[in-house]
Parts: sequence; C-alpha cells; structure tokens
Amino acid sequence: MVNQNNKNRIVFFISDRTGITAEALGGSLLSQFEGLNFTKIHLSFIDTLDKAHGAVKKVNSASLEAGEPALVFSTQINSEFRVMISKSNCVFFDFFETFISKMERSLDLKSSHTAGKSHSMNHNNNYSNRMSSINFALGSDDGLGSKTYENADLILIGVSRSGKTPSCLFMALQYGINAANYPLIEQDLENTKLPESLQQYKHKLFGLTINPIRLQKIRDERRSNSNYASLKQCQNEVKRAEDLYHSNNIPFIDTTQISIEEISAKIINKLSLR
Amino acid sequence: MVNQNNKNRIVFFISDRTGITAEALGGSLLSQFEGLNFTKIHLSFIDTLDKAHGAVKKVNSASLEAGEPALVFSTQINSEFRVMISKSNCVFFDFFETFISKMERSLDLKSSHTAGKSHSMNHNNNYSNRMSSINFALGSDDGLGSKTYENADLILIGVSRSGKTPSCLFMALQYGINAANYPLIEQDLENTKLPESLQQYKHKLFGLTINPIRLQKIRDERRSNSNYASLKQCQNEVKRAEDLYHSNNIPFIDTTQISIEEISAKIINKLSLR
Repeated sequence: MVNQNNKNRIVFFISDRTGITAEALGGSLLSQFEGLNFTKIHLSFIDTLDKAHGAVKKVNSASLEAGEPALVFSTQINSEFRVMISKSNCVFFDFFETFISKMERSLDLKSSHTAGKSHSMNHNNNYSNRMSSINFALGSDDGLGSKTYENADLILIGVSRSGKTPSCLFMALQYGINAANYPLIEQDLENTKLPESLQQYKHKLFGLTINPIRLQKIRDERRSNSNYASLKQCQNEVKRAEDLYHSNNIPFIDTTQISIEEISAKIINKLSLR
Repeated sequence: MVNQNNKNRIVFFISDRTGITAEALGGSLLSQFEGLNFTKIHLSFIDTLDKAHGAVKKVNSASLEAGEPALVFSTQINSEFRVMISKSNCVFFDFFETFISKMERSLDLKSSHTAGKSHSMNHNNNYSNRMSSINFALGSDDGLGSKTYENADLILIGVSRSGKTPSCLFMALQYGINAANYPLIEQDLENTKLPESLQQYKHKLFGLTINPIRLQKIRDERRSNSNYASLKQCQNEVKRAEDLYHSNNIPFIDTTQISIEEISAKIINKLSLR
C-alpha cells in the first residue's frame, strides 16, 4: 500500500505553548506508519497574530515545496489562530477542538479556552513535587544514605550502569516520585544477604537487571578495557544481583530492551505508586 | 454554567503501553475546565484480554459508584480491547482511532496498529541521544569544565538555585539536548566581564534570572538563615547577573513564574536548537 511518491512527508507540531502535548500524540500516531520519513518542524508559542501568520506562511511554503500538503498536529487553543492555521495548505489534525465540545457537553461546563495550562507551573499541582523529587534523585545519587531511604517512595537497586539514575530522574520529572538508588557493589554481591542499610526498607526495593553483553558495551564506553567493563565481570555481577533479588523476593525488571519511560511506568504499576 | 451536582468526576487514562501520551493530552484538555475536581486513575499496559476485562470492570464500577459515567481518555491501539473498553459505562475519548483513519487516507498507507512505539527504545531514534544527554547534564553538573562546554549544545548560566540543573535535565530527557551549566558565583559577579572559561562559548550561553524574593525562599529551604539565603544577597546577585547578561548581549529568561517545560521550550525556540 505504500505510495512510492510519498516516502517523505513534512509534519508540523503547532501550539500556543510548549508543544509537548502535540508532539507526544503526533509522534505516537506517526510511529504507526512504518517506511515513511517525516521531516518534523516544531512551532511553539504561536500566541500572537504575527506568529500565527508566520506559521501559516511556513506551512504553505513547505507544502508548496514538497508538492503535497504537510500534516499539521495542533494543540492550538486560541480559536482565531487555530482557524487561520487550519485553512492553510495542510492536512489539519486538531487535538484540541476535536474533543473539547464533547467534554463540554459531558461536563456541562464551558471550557476556559486558555492556552498553556497543562505544562505551566500554576496549573500543575504536581509541579513543586516534581522539582523536589529531582533534587531528591540528585541528592540520592550522591549517596546520602539512610535518611534518603526513609523519605523515598521507592529505592532502585542494581549493578553499576544498569539504568538506575536515568530511571530515578525520569520518575521524578514525570511523576514527582521520590526515587532513591542503591548501587550494588562487589561486597554487596559476595552473598545473597540484603545489604544492611536496605534491610528495613525491603518493601520499597525494586531491582534492575540487564543483559551482561549490553552492560559490557555500556561500561566499555566509560572505562574502556577495564576489568569493570570485562564481559566476565559483567556476567558475574548480573548473575549475583539476580540471585540476590530471587533470594529476597525483590521484584525486578530487565532494562535491556526497554526505555526509561517503560521502566518507570512498569515499576509504578507494580508498586501501585499512583 | 457549572453544574453544582457535578463537582467531581472520575477520569481514566487507559493505554496498551506507558499511558504517557494519554495523560499528556487528557491532562491538557482537563486543564481547560476550572472549578471541577478530577479523580484520576491510570491504567497502563492494558495488553491482554484479562487486563482489558479488568479495565472494563474498574470503569463500570467507578461510574456506578459516582452515579455518572467516568471520562476515559484512551490511546489503546489494539482494536479488540479498545472496542471493549469504549462500550463500558463511560464517555470515551479515543485519541488513537479518531485520527488514524484520516492519517491513513492522507499518507495512503495502512497503519501498523502496533502498540507501544512512541515511548519505546527501538522506535525512538532519539533515545540514545537522550540517555547520553542525561549523563552529559549530570557530568556537567559536577563541573567538568571546558571539555564539557566544547560538546555542549548550550550552556545555561545563572546564580545558585535559579533553575539551571532541572532545566538542563529536562532538555536532556525530553529533547536529547546537551545542556551544560555554569553557576555564577560571587567572584564572577564582581564586574560585568564574562568569566574566562565561557568567553569562547559566548554563542552557546543562555542566562537564567529569578525574582530575588522567590530565590530567597528557595535558598532558605536549603540553608536557613544563612547569608547565602538573605534577601540582600539574593537581590545583589540577581542584579549583577542581569547586568552581566545585558553587558554581554546574552539572551536570558526569568524563571520565577514558568515551569521547566516552558523554560526549555522557550530557550530551544530562541536558540533554534531543533
């Protein structure tokens, strides 16, 4: 079904504000179409008549040059600018208006039609949590120890470079979850006993594991040809970490093939953290 | 227009995968309705018949208990499960199917209807960039200096606690941008000359500023009653930092009222980093 003349398409993400929502849904929809290349153009903060005119011009000239209409994914809230842009030479996907009338009917309430609420500070009651969770994750990464674990919503454990820090940061940024981390070092892996400082927080623990070959590659990028990065060392550490998880009934997840978004969502799901 | 019986509504975000996209658009739409409280329930990884049945049950019983149908925001891609859930006792907002047919027509291509592409590792060509940018931001935060600036896409400068680190981390996580940071300390602020290590990277610099009263509050949470957290010190540092930006024609932004999403999007916009 592929139209051979149609291998590359121009896509615009247009928003009154950051454009993060337009990009999330638009990107999700585009990922359903394999074999096409998309040239993505981001127009954020389209919040004046001048900028709206500029956006229309850009869409028209991109469509003209490509010989076919660009796709426009829009979360534009301002009606005047939205209508202007929708009338440009494009296929217009309206992520806002498409749903807002149905919501108004269902909620029996008019929407405020005010731009920029979802990713702003004031209308995101989770915002200060998220900021303090980032500081928490950064502090935990410096190894502040048991006081940190006390205040943690969860504690990620795993060998060096198994994905703990980026996962903690993502959970902080996206969900405002206080995720601490504890790196399993060699002396922790001598037997399958839980390290002492973790014992009273067992219910908060979640383990990460990773394919040793992948781990070897990651470590080698950091410390090339070291014992730390040898395959044997990686295999050994991973096996012992998994033994430790099994022996102590600690839930764990293999991070080799999955993104930090998926790791985080799965952990939150399993620990029922939301 | 507020329906007085209608102050609290149950909302579900349902997805085959992480649910991040459903939450982004759903949250954005909900933020348009002031004066209502929403009880939000997240059902992610609904990827088996059992889990789909479970989701239907949860929606039905929540709607029954509330006495009115829950709102369901769905990015469910599997058709069978999507149809099941849409037929439960709810108002169903279909973020996937609503747009996918129009996209298929416009792209002259069938969608793959495969779940979980947008936030996965393999279909996110930006993923390894994002991971390496997180390490970059963390490394830069430890003050690795000039080698870091060489490889940076941009360098955020500002006084302590003006928002540099969280903004750098967000730009890394969301966009895969290598954002370094340089904290302006007192000796940098003695005059309006650019610190020596930054001079050759002037084109990469972006300044942050903040209301001194807000800064004082943030610093006081960290080091209560210190000179560092005194209003006078905060006023002095902020004024000198702004003088430095003005003298050297460095673009800058006031972070007092805006979120790290907005800070990041505005900076990327201004420096044309995408």
